[in-house]
Amino acid sequence: MVKQRATIDDVARAAGVSKSLVSFALNGKPGVAPQSRDRILRAAGELGWVPSVRARSLTTARAYALGLVIARDPAVISEDSFFPAFIAGIEAALAPVGQALVLSMVPDERAEHETYRQLVAHDRVDGVILTDLRESDSRVPLLRELGLLAVTLGHPQQHSEFPAVSVDDAPGIRAAVDHLVDLGHRRIAHVAGSSGMLHAARRSMAFSEALTLHGLRPDLVVEADFTAQGGAKATRDLLALEHPPTAIVYANDPMALAGMGVAQRLGLRVPEDLSVTGFDGGEAGRHNFPALTTVVTSVQEWGGASARALLSLIAGLDVADSELDPARLVVRESTASPVQHRASRALSAEKSIA
Amino acid sequence: MVKQRATIDDVARAAGVSKSLVSFALNGKPGVAPQSRDRILRAAGELGWVPSVRARSLTTARAYALGLVIARDPAVISEDSFFPAFIAGIEAALAPVGQALVLSMVPDERAEHETYRQLVAHDRVDGVILTDLRESDSRVPLLRELGLLAVTLGHPQQHSEFPAVSVDDAPGIRAAVDHLVDLGHRRIAHVAGSSGMLHAARRSMAFSEALTLHGLRPDLVVEADFTAQGGAKATRDLLALEHPPTAIVYANDPMALAGMGVAQRLGLRVPEDLSVTGFDGGEAGRHNFPALTTVVTSVQEWGGASARALLSLIAGLDVADSELDPARLVVRESTASPVQHRASRALSAEKSIA
Repeated sequence: MVKQRATIDDVARAAGVSKSLVSFALNGKPGVAPQSRDRILRAAGELGWVPSVRARSLTTARAYALGLVIARDPAVISEDSFFPAFIAGIEAALAPVGQALVLSMVPDERAEHETYRQLVAHDRVDGVILTDLRESDSRVPLLRELGLLAVTLGHPQQHSEFPAVSVDDAPGIRAAVDHLVDLGHRRIAHVAGSSGMLHAARRSMAFSEALTLHGLRPDLVVEADFTAQGGAKATRDLLALEHPPTAIVYANDPMALAGMGVAQRLGLRVPEDLSVTGFDGGEAGRHNFPALTTVVTSVQEWGGASARALLSLIAGLDVADSELDPARLVVRESTASPVQHRASRALSAEKSIA
Repeated sequence: MVKQRATIDDVARAAGVSKSLVSFALNGKPGVAPQSRDRILRAAGELGWVPSVRARSLTTARAYALGLVIARDPAVISEDSFFPAFIAGIEAALAPVGQALVLSMVPDERAEHETYRQLVAHDRVDGVILTDLRESDSRVPLLRELGLLAVTLGHPQQHSEFPAVSVDDAPGIRAAVDHLVDLGHRRIAHVAGSSGMLHAARRSMAFSEALTLHGLRPDLVVEADFTAQGGAKATRDLLALEHPPTAIVYANDPMALAGMGVAQRLGLRVPEDLSVTGFDGGEAGRHNFPALTTVVTSVQEWGGASARALLSLIAGLDVADSELDPARLVVRESTASPVQHRASRALSAEKSIA
């Protein structure tokens, strides 16, 4: 097993760059052009250059890994494309700098706190990405106490010294409401995500504000939990009302697709009898019939931007809050004018009478 | 920041167990009852007992982490519920023993090999779980060369010294075919996953064998890639045939749901004009209308069993190959007799004529 190890000099010579640039690249520091980094990492790989991260860690107190702790029901994680896409984005940012992602899924807040404590106690990560921010989020003070670096997805409500990497959901929700109002809808409902999660609350607030701007009362808001099952139940409740909505804006795609299923099962046609919009724009909605009109965000890009911000922070740089392109509406087939269709149905009824 | 650290004796006293049991539990060794382990970990947490894994690692050469390297397109990962559910199962097995999962997603085989080398070079993991086994899989000899412990999901084709944790897909596929033949279908197609993946090839082989057993020719097999888009394209090709199938058995749910969308878009009714079955049994299919008849496997359980087998292997125990409950068919709404429905359609046509 003993073989002559390649040195940084060997790698620098093979890659045709300076030794310090090699050192920068291999230590995941910023300021190395992606192409140079690639070339250096390839040369290091081909030469079989193997740093001992653990030995390095002892001197520099760095783990060369980022942490992501997800506190959601596994059922939600496995049916919503957000986390897989987000993680893919993180991985794409980590791979070129040879860093790793330590992933934990925890069932509740107690386990979540314990996991953060263990990540620190075991020096497993240099920092973490905080997702699913909550009202008075206990993780912000916990990480401060633990001295763990972090970036947050969006801005926490309380004071936070951690940089926030944000995507504004509101324009997408507003665009969905505007689109439905333009089509002639007046009874528009919202199936929200868990109100304890800030992004669910923000989407819900954007919905209510948009309706109010159009002079409509946002009185048809049902809270669900981002699962298909929760979305189905909320939809059944809404459609059982004496004056059911003609359109529903859902806080994510799995709830929207399940809601569409409920409506169709009740004999309603989508979009003729009920218009439906989703959020997050996964592949499933694109291939559904009718294809789902939805609000698209660049989830993978968000993962990458978060990871890069955290790496910069760990490298000791000043990292400002940043904002990605806002969510935008993609109109497909699940939305249409209720009036027009009622008219055309009357027309076809006349035809069959004639 | 300096405070008196709790010792193993303190934890043993608080948990009311022996010091050696505490040591076993905190080191993630097998043979500790889950309840005791929970109590010990809780006591350790409350007392603020913090082992230094990194220091431990240097003496025992253990990372106290498992690795999972996924070499699939991020698009596939984010639309298929298999990996999120599988990872949730791994996490559920690791959490009580305080171990971590190091997750990597890589775009191709070169990056994959590099990642395994880095995991070893950096001592990041004690072992890895190999998924998506391929024909003459280059990872098996690579891990042997690297001296990394592993368990494989299913049996590789080549010689492997690693324990296999398997789920037999064949009974589920056979049950789907039997169900369709019982309903009266004779032209049954299969939309397969990437043939380079052994589980896709096995599902495809089970399909052909089942058809042959019924005296039918398995001549309608189209290879796709497990994505919704691939499933949609394969379905369009099948339905454009001069004699299109009356039923399609898909190798996973996202392809089946996309295929159903294609059929409906072409004006076909599911299941009246086309019966459809899926595989892996995610939530999306359950809430779709019509709800997807599918083959269900315990993906989360599979993740847990794999992680436990690997932990035992790392602990130095003999680990035999193991097999979980086989996949089974869950009949919902997307399958029906083609003959019966053709008759009822003729009847309703007569009615409207009358």
